[in-house]
Amino acid sequence: MRNGLRARLAADRPCVNGWLSMSNGYGAELMTRCSWDSLTVDLQHGVHDYASMVACFQGIRFSGIPPLARVASLDSGMIGKALDAGAWGIICPMINSRQEAADFVSACLYPPLGRRSNGPNRAAGYGEPQASYQSFANEEVLVIPMIETGEAVESLDDILDVPGVSGVYIGPSDLAVSMGHPPTFDTEIPEILAIYRRIVAATHRRGQFAGIHCLSADYAARMTQMGLQLVTISSDGLLMTAGALQALDRFRSGIGERE
Amino acid sequence: MRNGLRARLAADRPCVNGWLSMSNGYGAELMTRCSWDSLTVDLQHGVHDYASMVACFQGIRFSGIPPLARVASLDSGMIGKALDAGAWGIICPMINSRQEAADFVSACLYPPLGRRSNGPNRAAGYGEPQASYQSFANEEVLVIPMIETGEAVESLDDILDVPGVSGVYIGPSDLAVSMGHPPTFDTEIPEILAIYRRIVAATHRRGQFAGIHCLSADYAARMTQMGLQLVTISSDGLLMTAGALQALDRFRSGIGERE
Amino acid sequence: MRNGLRARLAADRPCVNGWLSMSNGYGAELMTRCSWDSLTVDLQHGVHDYASMVACFQGIRFSGIPPLARVASLDSGMIGKALDAGAWGIICPMINSRQEAADFVSACLYPPLGRRSNGPNRAAGYGEPQASYQSFANEEVLVIPMIETGEAVESLDDILDVPGVSGVYIGPSDLAVSMGHPPTFDTEIPEILAIYRRIVAATHRRGQFAGIHCLSADYAARMTQMGLQLVTISSDGLLMTAGALQALDRFRSGIGERE
Amino acid sequence: MRNGLRARLAADRPCVNGWLSMSNGYGAELMTRCSWDSLTVDLQHGVHDYASMVACFQGIRFSGIPPLARVASLDSGMIGKALDAGAWGIICPMINSRQEAADFVSACLYPPLGRRSNGPNRAAGYGEPQASYQSFANEEVLVIPMIETGEAVESLDDILDVPGVSGVYIGPSDLAVSMGHPPTFDTEIPEILAIYRRIVAATHRRGQFAGIHCLSADYAARMTQMGLQLVTISSDGLLMTAGALQALDRFRSGIGERE
Amino acid sequence: MRNGLRARLAADRPCVNGWLSMSNGYGAELMTRCSWDSLTVDLQHGVHDYASMVACFQGIRFSGIPPLARVASLDSGMIGKALDAGAWGIICPMINSRQEAADFVSACLYPPLGRRSNGPNRAAGYGEPQASYQSFANEEVLVIPMIETGEAVESLDDILDVPGVSGVYIGPSDLAVSMGHPPTFDTEIPEILAIYRRIVAATHRRGQFAGIHCLSADYAARMTQMGLQLVTISSDGLLMTAGALQALDRFRSGIGERE
Amino acid sequence: MRNGLRARLAADRPCVNGWLSMSNGYGAELMTRCSWDSLTVDLQHGVHDYASMVACFQGIRFSGIPPLARVASLDSGMIGKALDAGAWGIICPMINSRQEAADFVSACLYPPLGRRSNGPNRAAGYGEPQASYQSFANEEVLVIPMIETGEAVESLDDILDVPGVSGVYIGPSDLAVSMGHPPTFDTEIPEILAIYRRIVAATHRRGQFAGIHCLSADYAARMTQMGLQLVTISSDGLLMTAGALQALDRFRSGIGERE
Repeated sequence: MRNGLRARLAADRPCVNGWLSMSNGYGAELMTRCSWDSLTVDLQHGVHDYASMVACFQGIRFSGIPPLARVASLDSGMIGKALDAGAWGIICPMINSRQEAADFVSACLYPPLGRRSNGPNRAAGYGEPQASYQSFANEEVLVIPMIETGEAVESLDDILDVPGVSGVYIGPSDLAVSMGHPPTFDTEIPEILAIYRRIVAATHRRGQFAGIHCLSADYAARMTQMGLQLVTISSDGLLMTAGALQALDRFRSGIGERE
Repeated sequence: MRNGLRARLAADRPCVNGWLSMSNGYGAELMTRCSWDSLTVDLQHGVHDYASMVACFQGIRFSGIPPLARVASLDSGMIGKALDAGAWGIICPMINSRQEAADFVSACLYPPLGRRSNGPNRAAGYGEPQASYQSFANEEVLVIPMIETGEAVESLDDILDVPGVSGVYIGPSDLAVSMGHPPTFDTEIPEILAIYRRIVAATHRRGQFAGIHCLSADYAARMTQMGLQLVTISSDGLLMTAGALQALDRFRSGIGERE
Repeated sequence: MRNGLRARLAADRPCVNGWLSMSNGYGAELMTRCSWDSLTVDLQHGVHDYASMVACFQGIRFSGIPPLARVASLDSGMIGKALDAGAWGIICPMINSRQEAADFVSACLYPPLGRRSNGPNRAAGYGEPQASYQSFANEEVLVIPMIETGEAVESLDDILDVPGVSGVYIGPSDLAVSMGHPPTFDTEIPEILAIYRRIVAATHRRGQFAGIHCLSADYAARMTQMGLQLVTISSDGLLMTAGALQALDRFRSGIGERE
Repeated sequence: MRNGLRARLAADRPCVNGWLSMSNGYGAELMTRCSWDSLTVDLQHGVHDYASMVACFQGIRFSGIPPLARVASLDSGMIGKALDAGAWGIICPMINSRQEAADFVSACLYPPLGRRSNGPNRAAGYGEPQASYQSFANEEVLVIPMIETGEAVESLDDILDVPGVSGVYIGPSDLAVSMGHPPTFDTEIPEILAIYRRIVAATHRRGQFAGIHCLSADYAARMTQMGLQLVTISSDGLLMTAGALQALDRFRSGIGERE
Repeated sequence: MRNGLRARLAADRPCVNGWLSMSNGYGAELMTRCSWDSLTVDLQHGVHDYASMVACFQGIRFSGIPPLARVASLDSGMIGKALDAGAWGIICPMINSRQEAADFVSACLYPPLGRRSNGPNRAAGYGEPQASYQSFANEEVLVIPMIETGEAVESLDDILDVPGVSGVYIGPSDLAVSMGHPPTFDTEIPEILAIYRRIVAATHRRGQFAGIHCLSADYAARMTQMGLQLVTISSDGLLMTAGALQALDRFRSGIGERE
Repeated sequence: MRNGLRARLAADRPCVNGWLSMSNGYGAELMTRCSWDSLTVDLQHGVHDYASMVACFQGIRFSGIPPLARVASLDSGMIGKALDAGAWGIICPMINSRQEAADFVSACLYPPLGRRSNGPNRAAGYGEPQASYQSFANEEVLVIPMIETGEAVESLDDILDVPGVSGVYIGPSDLAVSMGHPPTFDTEIPEILAIYRRIVAATHRRGQFAGIHCLSADYAARMTQMGLQLVTISSDGLLMTAGALQALDRFRSGIGERE
């Protein structure tokens, strides 16, 4: 089995990613009822660890939706474990320099491109009759550094030039903070939008992609039109609580109660 | 600490209940960001067991929102465990006769009203400086049989007359199936709405309450106006996936893509 | 999605079932690398509970191998939960009479054939564009009482005549014990083999199937040739430890060490 | 491996039992640093289920301290699972009649004495080179009904006369409630102490034992001197919190602070 | 919600900290029945990981007792996860130099003081109507390096001078080992007590605090009087086993048995 | 309790190690039915994390088989946690230089040989009446770097010369990849076998041991005869699936079916 997200990105089709911050295996399985192009388990800011990531990956395997993992830090041990467990891409926070990008690539790819250790467990199941997982993993795994500091923006070309970097993922709130703004998503600050455009241009030039975390579907659509090819909309927890708040509001209006 | 849902029902205020079918402890904690009057862990059709129920109850304790449990069957062992773990009310499926109602009450209340065994664990923490949990549990715990078969409707008065029954909870889809209809929520079938009205009348006459599981906020509001005092809206999983489906649809419209 | 095991049994093809006594979700997923016709989570004698069963069912969903559950007892609450979680069949121990068989069927099937409550969670995902899971569940779910006591053998016709019984599953060791023998599998005791033949005949006559738990592949093949259509071979734990014992023995011979 | 608690009881030596209400596997393992004669996982009022019981049993196996389980109710499925998991005795709440005692024995013992189903998992590991677990389980497993209602006291002889009953365990707080007193442990109420003496006499006459749940070591010692052979002292959770309260009090006295 | 421990430390009141080495969520919840000023989940030497830490934090949230985490090492990923999960302070082992202290501060604080990434999950729930968690986190989070080697003692001023360090926590047994003594708590070795006094003086001079892990309440009181403001007494596991050992001893004396 | 594997290695006896990649605590316990000389929980390529490792260690403690851990990377925090949890040896991947070997030793040993922090939890239970665990841990814990790259082979003497290194463990598939071959076990490539011989010679010269991961018992026996003293055969998951594949094949042959 190959990485459908990679194929879709390669075909220049917009990709919309679901975000798993709270889900157990069953919640992840429920998310497959929606047509996400990929689903990412957030090991950094989500309430997740290795075991819950594996449970989510198992929950979604039947659907064919490619699983990704956002790791908590540039930790080669955990990156290897996420890939062995079947992640088709790794999003790594706080990649700010060529060296960090190179270390990140090294953790994701088998020799000679990197130093990933052999021993896929769940991922071995992606193997095909004529081709083991290991034989095509380096082509299929997406290596996605996060650009989320001013430092990273300054080192953008250095980072993108590291062989093996597939694309980048913008962390809007950390980037905003890094530029001296409050932590916000779906920003309208021109200075930051300009950075996004610069990232789009720099990635496209190299045949790479750019992604970003959005809150609203509308903003995600705008980002897509701006050239970002991988857009995340909200998260499992926010979708649930936003739905609940809306329902409660409508109910209380309906019965003429305000609280 | 007393049961806020019981007080609210006693004050004849409409109560809106959240439904936990998929949540782990963190998902339950997230649900407290919404102003539910109670939150019910569904041990019957939800993907829950005793351990995940305890985790959810712990997740919401700080909020003061009263936890309920819908058990999988009339099993006195599990009912006792749910109450000991802090459930302020038990919703029990398929109570179809006076005897079943009496057995259910017996499992929920301490002697002399029932045969619940002493040994609250988390619930002991509800005790007050001057009054142990055990001293007021019989007054505070809600005993809520489900009315969800034709048989139960026929035995309605028998069931409601059992001392200790606090109110009833309508299971709309099982009731519909039992009446020869497909399993649906938010029904408009006059025959079934007539049953709802009959249940409302019979409970009100005895100072009891009626509750029902709804999908939409609008239907829940209508039910409230029809006299049902405890209405559930949707569930954690449905709120999440409905939100996701809506977002994905909006996104794909926004970029002019149809899939 | 339909129940492939049922189709295969209906086509009179021999079916070989894998048995999950120790596996977590990953172990179950590993078992799908083998061409089992079904995989059963043993909630009775296996080290399993509801949560681990769900994890196993999620682990194997992608493979299309139909999941079954052997429950610990005739407990309608747990049977409903196993079915809602996606079991395509329930094996229930110690069904010894027409009444027990009828109660078991009732727990497995939706009205009007039984009293199963509506609310599939994972199983809802088996629904098809034109047909909800609920619309075909009664046709697809396998209801499989265990015949494992002398009492059950005497009541065999009564049990098989209960509408909704799909076939039976022989518990060889309990049956042996019940007949005054030590608890063994893969028996050669003529008295017991005669009972097996009688069960095969009685089920075939009614268009039902018979299954049995075997230890060795050879015995399972013999049972198939005797007309038993559903044969279990060993279990996850026994396969692992038998493999380990054999490897250790071979290793120690290889190095000329005996221990 | 045999049941050391049974041997010790048979030798008329006083036995002191530890109580696991909150522990995970590690907490249970820690408890083995103390010389308990047995350790009981409380599935009724403890925050435990099957999975956590297995974890506790694994945690203590190395120590040789015999594990028991107090089940939540007379549920043959769960009793079988606890025994298969290695419990050397089952304490069952609310046994009030000869029939209930007989059903309880039946769930605990293999044929011909009972109807326990064959398939020990962890317990199979107790087997000896010359004797399988199944060959001696009926001699070793302790079947311990709880006497905790006035009804049970009235049926005491009936209950004790059921073949297979090993001894009884007094539930002091439920018994007190049943006699119209508040739920208390370590009682001094003469009426209740008289019942204890009657239970001791009735069990001794039959070569059975009596046990009781105590809070303090002193009361447990008194009970031992009164002829109760199996005494539980406090519980894991109470030992921890009592120790903490005492330490905090001493600390705050030490620094001259009162809060 | 603000960090009550910080306020109490700022008010120069002695603070007594409870230590969670073995507890699951329920054990942690039980500990709130005691008036600890804070409760620390030990991810280093405790049997804890991220998931069990979250369970403990959920278990105690209702009580208002501030949760801390002692991490296993200076790992920015895990520190961020612990803070996002709601830790009001991080105790980090083996901080031996200015650089390590600076890296530790950087992992704990948001820009511009550090490089913590934005995305609190449980901690977001501490937000107030007028002030998000992020807006006050840098003021409230306690950054607590451990001083537990001779190297650290030598670098004490360097460490304390790093902006953002709130106070220090002495690891008595590692410090003893580092000074060539056996690993002990509650030491009376003059050389080491002199170091404690030096640490107290150096922290007080800067308006910081010093903490220490103690076994006995009496020693903790002495440490308080010596100027250490944050004292831990024992741990959940030690309190439980010490209580058990004492009870068993008293019981066996009571019945005249010595073992 | 001492480390039986270390004693056996010191006595120059061949040691065969079992590998836990998928097991939960019960699966690990089952593996003790086989005469492994040690059992290793694989935290790198196995589906394991800290919590599942502890469960496995608890599951096998009773057997006396020494537990080891293969960590995911050179992470001192996790190495300390594995040792505190009772690992009698640590296998660390990708040790390629003297410095990495020195850092690894430092993480495993108490001062003055290393910087391991004091606070064993489960391991404290290995203490003896006259000798605490800490007093002999440095002698008993096995420090086992993996040699699995060309770089490591070049630095072999440097690595082995680091005081505290007990022996090495060859990672055959990574080593093969590093030498430009596909990832394979049980290799016959002369160039690689020559490296194995060189490793054997270099370790023996220093009184150290060499180990290797094998698939088949036969290859493991050959490796033993070549001088490798610690050989792993297969893994829990492979033993299970290999057994299943063989049984299914035999069954299908037996009934004349080919699929």
